[in-house]
Amino acid sequence: MSARAHPVDGDVSPATDGGDTPTNSSPHRHKVGVPPKPNMFHDFMYTFKETFFHDDPLRHFKDQPKSKQFMLGLQSVFPVFDWGRTYNFKKFRGDLIAGLTIASLCIPQDIGYAKLANLDPKYGLYSSFVPPLVYACMGSSRDIAIGPVAVVSLLLGTLLRAEVDPNTNPDEYLRLAFTATFFAGVTEAALGFFRLGFLIDFLSHAAVVGFMGGAAITIALQQLKGFLGIKKFTKKTDIIAVLDSVFSSANHGWNWQTIVIGASFLTFLLTSKFIGKKNKKLFWVPAVAPLISVIISTFFVYITRADKQGVQIVKHLDKGINPSSFGQIYFSGDYLAKGIKIGVVSGMVALTEAVAIGRTFAAMKDYQIDGNKEMVALGVMNVVGSMSSCYVATGSFSRSAVNFMAGCHTAVSNIIMSIVVLLTLLFLTPLFKYTPNAILAAIIINAVIPLVDIQAAVLIFKVDKLDFVACMGAFFGVIFVSVEIGLLIAVSISFAKILLQVTRPRTAILGNIPRTSVYRNIQQYPEATMVPGVLMIRVDSAIYFSNSNYVRERIQRWLLEEEEKVKAASLPRIQFLIIEMSPVTDIDTSGIHALEDLYKSLQKRDIQLILANPGPLVIGKLHLSHFADMLGHDNIFLTVADAVESCCPKLSDEV
Amino acid sequence: MSARAHPVDGDVSPATDGGDTPTNSSPHRHKVGVPPKPNMFHDFMYTFKETFFHDDPLRHFKDQPKSKQFMLGLQSVFPVFDWGRTYNFKKFRGDLIAGLTIASLCIPQDIGYAKLANLDPKYGLYSSFVPPLVYACMGSSRDIAIGPVAVVSLLLGTLLRAEVDPNTNPDEYLRLAFTATFFAGVTEAALGFFRLGFLIDFLSHAAVVGFMGGAAITIALQQLKGFLGIKKFTKKTDIIAVLDSVFSSANHGWNWQTIVIGASFLTFLLTSKFIGKKNKKLFWVPAVAPLISVIISTFFVYITRADKQGVQIVKHLDKGINPSSFGQIYFSGDYLAKGIKIGVVSGMVALTEAVAIGRTFAAMKDYQIDGNKEMVALGVMNVVGSMSSCYVATGSFSRSAVNFMAGCHTAVSNIIMSIVVLLTLLFLTPLFKYTPNAILAAIIINAVIPLVDIQAAVLIFKVDKLDFVACMGAFFGVIFVSVEIGLLIAVSISFAKILLQVTRPRTAILGNIPRTSVYRNIQQYPEATMVPGVLMIRVDSAIYFSNSNYVRERIQRWLLEEEEKVKAASLPRIQFLIIEMSPVTDIDTSGIHALEDLYKSLQKRDIQLILANPGPLVIGKLHLSHFADMLGHDNIFLTVADAVESCCPKLSDEV
Repeated sequence: MSARAHPVDGDVSPATDGGDTPTNSSPHRHKVGVPPKPNMFHDFMYTFKETFFHDDPLRHFKDQPKSKQFMLGLQSVFPVFDWGRTYNFKKFRGDLIAGLTIASLCIPQDIGYAKLANLDPKYGLYSSFVPPLVYACMGSSRDIAIGPVAVVSLLLGTLLRAEVDPNTNPDEYLRLAFTATFFAGVTEAALGFFRLGFLIDFLSHAAVVGFMGGAAITIALQQLKGFLGIKKFTKKTDIIAVLDSVFSSANHGWNWQTIVIGASFLTFLLTSKFIGKKNKKLFWVPAVAPLISVIISTFFVYITRADKQGVQIVKHLDKGINPSSFGQIYFSGDYLAKGIKIGVVSGMVALTEAVAIGRTFAAMKDYQIDGNKEMVALGVMNVVGSMSSCYVATGSFSRSAVNFMAGCHTAVSNIIMSIVVLLTLLFLTPLFKYTPNAILAAIIINAVIPLVDIQAAVLIFKVDKLDFVACMGAFFGVIFVSVEIGLLIAVSISFAKILLQVTRPRTAILGNIPRTSVYRNIQQYPEATMVPGVLMIRVDSAIYFSNSNYVRERIQRWLLEEEEKVKAASLPRIQFLIIEMSPVTDIDTSGIHALEDLYKSLQKRDIQLILANPGPLVIGKLHLSHFADMLGHDNIFLTVADAVESCCPKLSDEV
Repeated sequence: MSARAHPVDGDVSPATDGGDTPTNSSPHRHKVGVPPKPNMFHDFMYTFKETFFHDDPLRHFKDQPKSKQFMLGLQSVFPVFDWGRTYNFKKFRGDLIAGLTIASLCIPQDIGYAKLANLDPKYGLYSSFVPPLVYACMGSSRDIAIGPVAVVSLLLGTLLRAEVDPNTNPDEYLRLAFTATFFAGVTEAALGFFRLGFLIDFLSHAAVVGFMGGAAITIALQQLKGFLGIKKFTKKTDIIAVLDSVFSSANHGWNWQTIVIGASFLTFLLTSKFIGKKNKKLFWVPAVAPLISVIISTFFVYITRADKQGVQIVKHLDKGINPSSFGQIYFSGDYLAKGIKIGVVSGMVALTEAVAIGRTFAAMKDYQIDGNKEMVALGVMNVVGSMSSCYVATGSFSRSAVNFMAGCHTAVSNIIMSIVVLLTLLFLTPLFKYTPNAILAAIIINAVIPLVDIQAAVLIFKVDKLDFVACMGAFFGVIFVSVEIGLLIAVSISFAKILLQVTRPRTAILGNIPRTSVYRNIQQYPEATMVPGVLMIRVDSAIYFSNSNYVRERIQRWLLEEEEKVKAASLPRIQFLIIEMSPVTDIDTSGIHALEDLYKSLQKRDIQLILANPGPLVIGKLHLSHFADMLGHDNIFLTVADAVESCCPKLSDEV
């Protein structure tokens, strides 16, 4: 035998410590290590730390003088003090170009998005002025572009309209919108502060893809009102009501001048987007196309007075910067609870989008962003926003991508954008009077198209059918019912998947890969051979209360099936059941009881239970609960190979 | 090198099928098997089957003639047709003794438990007559004893009292109780029929131990009313209100004659229990002690007319069997929704208890019970019960243990018990008139003591601190607030634990166990050595949306920490990162994205990512998503040892 083999020349002695001295004549046989008995609070604190402080946020503070610690603390709350020290003109040039580009993109989008939230256009612009400034001081992402976004605007608008009618009670509606924004901010900041950021990970990627796609189509459908010049339009958002509304107004409600304007500029926008995609250097073409469309179409309408032909225009846009709205937030009464509810939902969705963007671009440029700190920044930004007439702002996918491609270096690009929006609010708003609504509709349709991510859906379909069901559930839920129902479906399916995962862990029969001491799943490696008289099963999950009964029953069923096969083939009967425990990272009392039940039931049938490679937590608990004593310490091995070698000489020739 | 080693003499070729022909000159190097591309519905159906039909309930029906299939189907719905065919006198003798024993135990318990549910004593007896008969035909457990139980009675009483006052509206209260019982049965049957039985596994063992212990103490405290002869007693169940009520009535409300009777018989009961524990053959002593206490104390009160001294007695117990109560169930109106709510909660709790009992005794005698079929049986039993004046019945732990020890063989012991209860209802009820309430209180206190399972709590404390928190949370929730709040805490903590488990999987640094090709967690095996320039990390869970970001960040943190150590020790810099994927049983699109992000970020730092032993699902998905192409097929290995051996020659001497 070679030095790498695992000869069996003695029992494995009861392993009671982690020492490495061989306990018998064989220098090669290793016993299963038992970690030292955990300190009373050790495992609790470990779990606590990994749950809430897994990124070790205080790492930098270690072994530093007090003054340095203060500076680091300040930098940690306001990253501007960190990157500001190394800021230079070269970086500023990049940020300036990027800032101007995203400003040209955000102004027309903001006006349109505000309408999705059933708010006056000015509130969209307000929300692109204050929040980006706050974020620039506190945020840690360098590429994110802050402002109102389509999906959150639609969601907020839908949720608010369910409580207050924006047409009959515009004041109450506005106050509730600020209240919801305030509590969206509080939710975001609280999740970050209490380090509960991982909660947003519970929305699965597949569900988000479906939800976003559905929301994009719903938003595009809503634009048919402006695009076709329809005056009477349904207030529902489901596809059936909208299409019914569109076609029933086909004879008298459509305005051909509007359609011509809208269609021609949509073609222009799509062409510019195509050009930008073909040649990455021309990324600025699709970025400035919306503003150009607005300018040209506004000028055209002003010249031709097409608004007298029924082409709907923006009409009036207030001049001046954000007024204070602190007094308008409901802190008591019926609307408080409603505001909190809407705020929590829209805040979480806004957070999901912003955190995804932050992570995507951080991975591209290889820097770390602290998810929890990021949430605090986004939360504070929305709280401040809610007091200065803004509604929920977050990171926009499309504008962040443009920001990235335009070569931004830091959050200064957001400040530039914010200044441009400020100048627009101060001086340029009257110029939007003749902007046709059809242009805004075309810009929004163009902006939301990339949210329908067919490629991602195809990948999900290929990779996991169940994920695809979740994706389609959310998608059709949004399209055919409403955006809240779609979200609810997305969250429910995500949770169901988590529960399924912990309730029905996989198990596999193992076989020996020829000419090695490696044992692998025989379904994956058809060349792997089973050892007569021995059944090897791997359990692929921690054994907890949620799956302990299933695991026990599944192992018994494997055994039953194999026994039938063995009987049919007149092979020696199964005398040893080896459970490969490598993937079993943890076990609880229910799991130990399941193993005990299995052990007892196997004993009745004269089959020896053997464990291979239990991990540190598991072996510790098996000792504490005395199951290891019950099973016998010489029935616990380091590897499956060791276990098999110990079985073989003991096999009798029964059939 | 021996035949068992894994020499590196060529790249691993892209593995596109599960074939076992070596692809290069080495006969020993195995590639990672890729299972055949799954059929469109294959993995969906597999998951579906493992979720809902993991026990393969139709296995017996395969390859059988039609007539046999019909017989098997009938036996499957009514197991009585199965065991009935081999029933004989010897079995009957065992069942007769067991049935008489549990009948003597259940009659006094039933009268007391009905009071916990704020119902007349007769309803307790009714519930021990019809449900056991139904269960005997349909149930598959041979040892369970059916009837009202303490915890469910308390829970039902608390929930019902929150809706209707049993003193002012006894009729409505009774009708709502039947309605709740009906829907408890419907819930149980539906869970079984739709094969959703695994839902009750979501209540962790630790939470159940805490809940049961708290409920037992609450029940015992409630008995102080009867035990001390207090007339005015609080309606709350929390310990503070109860003790306040007890001590404020100490001066005038206690009745010494009652206390003397109660205390002496409680001593008798506890002594008999002690005797039964010391000598297993005398198990019948504690089993018949309650009935003996009732007979003696009733006779004593009748002789002395102690009821005239203020000793409270049962007074009146209706004669006759269960009247129909079908017409009393609310199928419409306000009470319908309330009845459904109460029914669902109490039905689930009843189910948890019954299924736990069924599993325990099935494991002891090594027979299988079908959880889902069992639920249907319990559900039908309660539906029938609700129409015949019974309230929620389930399996009783204490009586089932007695049934088991008395040597029952089949559910016939339940029929015997049922007949005894029938005879009692028909002829003996007037005899209970002078039974003192203090005796019933003593019997209940004696019965619930074993539910406070201190041994289990100690084991939970030793094995898992977090589980212990769940256990204590449920325990104190029941004691200090109410039984519903305790249940809510138990369920919430159980869910939180599941979510924690999938959000924060464990990771470990691996080292080589000297003189083997085995790589193990260096915390568990301190003798394991790390390979210079190579970092090996094992991820201990499927990588899903809920943990993909955490896993990526945790791997990056391990790398950072190790790089700092390496720098401090002037060792060669880390050039290879091997991820041991054995425990990674599955991956979804979020997980693949996390790997892609990790790969890109490592590339920027000139570190090669290598995967070892991805499972069948994972490797399939890595191929489908083209991540395997991105990574390079020669960077995926069968074992960590193979991966390390391929790295070592490539290591450069950078520090």
